[in-house]
Amino acid sequence: METKQIPSIVVGRLPVYLRALEYMKREHRQVTSSQELAERLGISAAQIRKDLSQFGEFGKQGTGYDIENLVTQLRAILHINRVWDIAVVGAGDVGHAVARYQGFTDRGFRVAQIFDNDPSKIGSQIGEFIVRDSADMLEIIHQAGIKIAMIAVTASHAQDVADQLVKAGVKAILNYAPITLNVPPEVHVQYIDPSVHLQRMAYYLG
Amino acid sequence: METKQIPSIVVGRLPVYLRALEYMKREHRQVTSSQELAERLGISAAQIRKDLSQFGEFGKQGTGYDIENLVTQLRAILHINRVWDIAVVGAGDVGHAVARYQGFTDRGFRVAQIFDNDPSKIGSQIGEFIVRDSADMLEIIHQAGIKIAMIAVTASHAQDVADQLVKAGVKAILNYAPITLNVPPEVHVQYIDPSVHLQRMAYYLG
Repeated sequence: METKQIPSIVVGRLPVYLRALEYMKREHRQVTSSQELAERLGISAAQIRKDLSQFGEFGKQGTGYDIENLVTQLRAILHINRVWDIAVVGAGDVGHAVARYQGFTDRGFRVAQIFDNDPSKIGSQIGEFIVRDSADMLEIIHQAGIKIAMIAVTASHAQDVADQLVKAGVKAILNYAPITLNVPPEVHVQYIDPSVHLQRMAYYLG
Repeated sequence: METKQIPSIVVGRLPVYLRALEYMKREHRQVTSSQELAERLGISAAQIRKDLSQFGEFGKQGTGYDIENLVTQLRAILHINRVWDIAVVGAGDVGHAVARYQGFTDRGFRVAQIFDNDPSKIGSQIGEFIVRDSADMLEIIHQAGIKIAMIAVTASHAQDVADQLVKAGVKAILNYAPITLNVPPEVHVQYIDPSVHLQRMAYYLG
């Protein structure tokens, strides 16, 4: 199924479909339709059918989608029918919030390590974690085989941290630092910068 | 300048250009080029020139962009040559982190109010803020004329909160709750859900 190249914009919508389906599942729903998903998500039913059809046949004309089955399939397609360990770099406010965040549960991820370079933070406890020295980060991440990391350090340190993470074998970075990272093409980066999101909307507020 | 419709994908890149330019400005740089921005941002120089040209003439062939001037212009285009007050709804971990977040400073925004419906949180202090009762939210936001809000409540409460915010006159919502919101077309929504970002990358980790 994955030999053909799926556009990244389609891949980007799959987690949104999955999130809606898992919400319906928690509401003990069993069947849905592209029309219902369209209303919930503000994406056209035709687009949803087209996106899903790139990965296989999930629904029958007239009977809709079996929610449980589609959730299972989407989790497999997204490779989250397993739990990925995550390393968090930076034990400031954002690092704290991420380490304590309950929203990863059942969504394929768990925070496994948290690092900082500040001697006053190293050894301190955040939730169930002891903050470790980022000087040991490369070795610990490499040995643990961690492939996903979050960067929650200042903009001026973020590129250095990213370089080390790449050396340690990390292949996906969720970057909270307000700077664009330069990484090799095989490493994926996503950005969370609330100011960027807000500025994008402020444009329309006029 | 803004009578023609600019594609939202172009608008979405402006804050990223601005962020890079402000970083250069802090490094006491005075001039940059579309080539340098391209290298920093992983966006082609031609795309950057084309995007910026939609809003006016900012650079001269051969001499590049005056950083200070382009920052000033982009801030005006994005309507962040002023400070927007923000209401935060939800005083949990995410609300805490947002209320204490230093990254809004000088980027056009400041948290002005934080609300929760939990009696044990109402009246408590977060940084410089006293958490207010979300029962009073509609009136307070309306009276203060606040146009931007962040939702940091659970998925099951988020739509109710969004409905109230819209009634109160909010026109832009940054939603941290893991659910897609239904709002009228004139209200803008952006989403921050770290699990969605991570799932999107996990697809490629295989």
